[in-house]
Amino acid sequence: MDTLLLDSSDVDENAQMGDVVAAVEAAFAAYEEGRTKMPAKSYVDLPKYNGDFRSMPAYMAADDWDAAGIKWVNVHPDNPENFDLPTVMGTMIYSDPETAVPLAIMDGTELTMKRTGAAAAVATDYLAVEDATSLGIVGAGVQSYTQLDAIAQVRDIQTVVVSDVRDEAVERFKDVYGDDFDVERGEISDAAHCDIVSTVTPVEDPIVTPDDVGEHTHINAMGADAEGKHELADDVLLDAKVVIDDFEQCTHSGEVNVPFSTGVMDADDIYGEIGEIVTGVRDGRTSDDGVTVFDSTGLAIQDVAAAHVVYEHAFENDNGTPFELIQT
Amino acid sequence: MDTLLLDSSDVDENAQMGDVVAAVEAAFAAYEEGRTKMPAKSYVDLPKYNGDFRSMPAYMAADDWDAAGIKWVNVHPDNPENFDLPTVMGTMIYSDPETAVPLAIMDGTELTMKRTGAAAAVATDYLAVEDATSLGIVGAGVQSYTQLDAIAQVRDIQTVVVSDVRDEAVERFKDVYGDDFDVERGEISDAAHCDIVSTVTPVEDPIVTPDDVGEHTHINAMGADAEGKHELADDVLLDAKVVIDDFEQCTHSGEVNVPFSTGVMDADDIYGEIGEIVTGVRDGRTSDDGVTVFDSTGLAIQDVAAAHVVYEHAFENDNGTPFELIQT
Repeated sequence: MDTLLLDSSDVDENAQMGDVVAAVEAAFAAYEEGRTKMPAKSYVDLPKYNGDFRSMPAYMAADDWDAAGIKWVNVHPDNPENFDLPTVMGTMIYSDPETAVPLAIMDGTELTMKRTGAAAAVATDYLAVEDATSLGIVGAGVQSYTQLDAIAQVRDIQTVVVSDVRDEAVERFKDVYGDDFDVERGEISDAAHCDIVSTVTPVEDPIVTPDDVGEHTHINAMGADAEGKHELADDVLLDAKVVIDDFEQCTHSGEVNVPFSTGVMDADDIYGEIGEIVTGVRDGRTSDDGVTVFDSTGLAIQDVAAAHVVYEHAFENDNGTPFELIQT
Repeated sequence: MDTLLLDSSDVDENAQMGDVVAAVEAAFAAYEEGRTKMPAKSYVDLPKYNGDFRSMPAYMAADDWDAAGIKWVNVHPDNPENFDLPTVMGTMIYSDPETAVPLAIMDGTELTMKRTGAAAAVATDYLAVEDATSLGIVGAGVQSYTQLDAIAQVRDIQTVVVSDVRDEAVERFKDVYGDDFDVERGEISDAAHCDIVSTVTPVEDPIVTPDDVGEHTHINAMGADAEGKHELADDVLLDAKVVIDDFEQCTHSGEVNVPFSTGVMDADDIYGEIGEIVTGVRDGRTSDDGVTVFDSTGLAIQDVAAAHVVYEHAFENDNGTPFELIQT
């Protein structure tokens, strides 16, 4: 049997963002309605190398398709300095749930960026003001690009305000998006006064205060992915309508993990899970809402959903490299 | 960066059995001595398709090498009849623990057979009589071949007695090994009167009784890999020196799972783990021992150890297909 190999460029090319956003929305709905199987992430900690591996297996059923697979991903913070390698790399095995045939093996790094952007777009679609046209980006690193790509699928973004202390990061962002959007550099406060802002930083001391944020801004808090990380001041969270992707993951390693551990926040301060909003169990933005926050940690079902889009598009268009890994 | 793709033939060719046996022995020792990281297997159950996926991540450190990776494997019993596909297929991602680079992606099906044979050989080396020359095989399916390949690395096997009700399975086994060994067909009792016998069947009602077994036979009980499976009569187990690979896995899904669940056996009836014997914490066979049993369920560290051998040999010999999965 053939397994389709999809490298970083293949994933980029075949992850049609509109379809990825729809698939990730379907994944959130499936999660809420019990049509997923998602064991907790397993960690293989390697203190000797200051790194770890994480395995993220999952199955999900949408209305007219289902998908299964596993992402094997790492965090090795010393990689850039010591080995000129990325901190995070991922490999995704995408399997047919009916027969278990490994349909595709793809770069999970690029896939993670796509599905993370898509998650922000789904939340933005339900939580941002309808006529949003401005997007702030706090932290213009590699993960910030798919924030704009995906959010532009759900709102008519005209202006983008980028905040980053690194000149070269801002310049690169401008180079990529300057022709399609009005891209300006600004302070954190400028970015967070946009209709929508995505924070995409690894900080442990909050950098966004209540004064920084617009009255009706929707915040996608994307940066926190480990215990101790925290981008938004506690008062921003306490005054906002806070939506999470998963209670267990968010309270362990998401934006709310620090205020939960210090007792500043508890379950009553969470409005709901994104799956509840997508399925209509809870409202998205209402006319009463001011600031809204989406705390995204990233679920294995998002990877499986995005991999489904990539594989189907690649297969239909003869993209990728077929390889007979398992000979039967 | 390049990832080496190793298909079924590549795995077969590069899994030098003597090296695999040594690597699996090192894995058992590392496990006993706390030089492994091995989260519990995660299951993704898919009752709709009468199947499941299992993820098996692991890290192990031997004396002069270490290795990490994950095997993604399934059990879909309807595959042969409905899709002309194997019940079990596996895909292994083999990673550099220091940088997390995915060094190789290989067929995990072939790899499983190799490392399973190697586990039996390690146990045989410590538990069979020194001058063993005869090996019984009960169940001549695909998993039986590596039993002989591996055990012949640790004992001077001359005679092989094959027991299987399927004529074609016996004939195929004879075709493969008839030139190198004296291969005879026999009853279960004939096979289990050899110096060593490996049982490799999926039965749930025991097929090996105390009368079937020789006085000093070492039994490798390889077949049980799920709740309810059981190849050896309770009295065989109760009268034998029973060595397991892992208490948690064996009592859940190994040969001893049924007698444990019925209360016929408890922890006092287990002599020890194979890692304890490999490291000298407990003796292997002594002059007082009669029948010995090794209950093998298969550990993720065995896969990682075998993958290490396959990758290193393939890399040194320019085997396999380099592919730039992750473009940095």
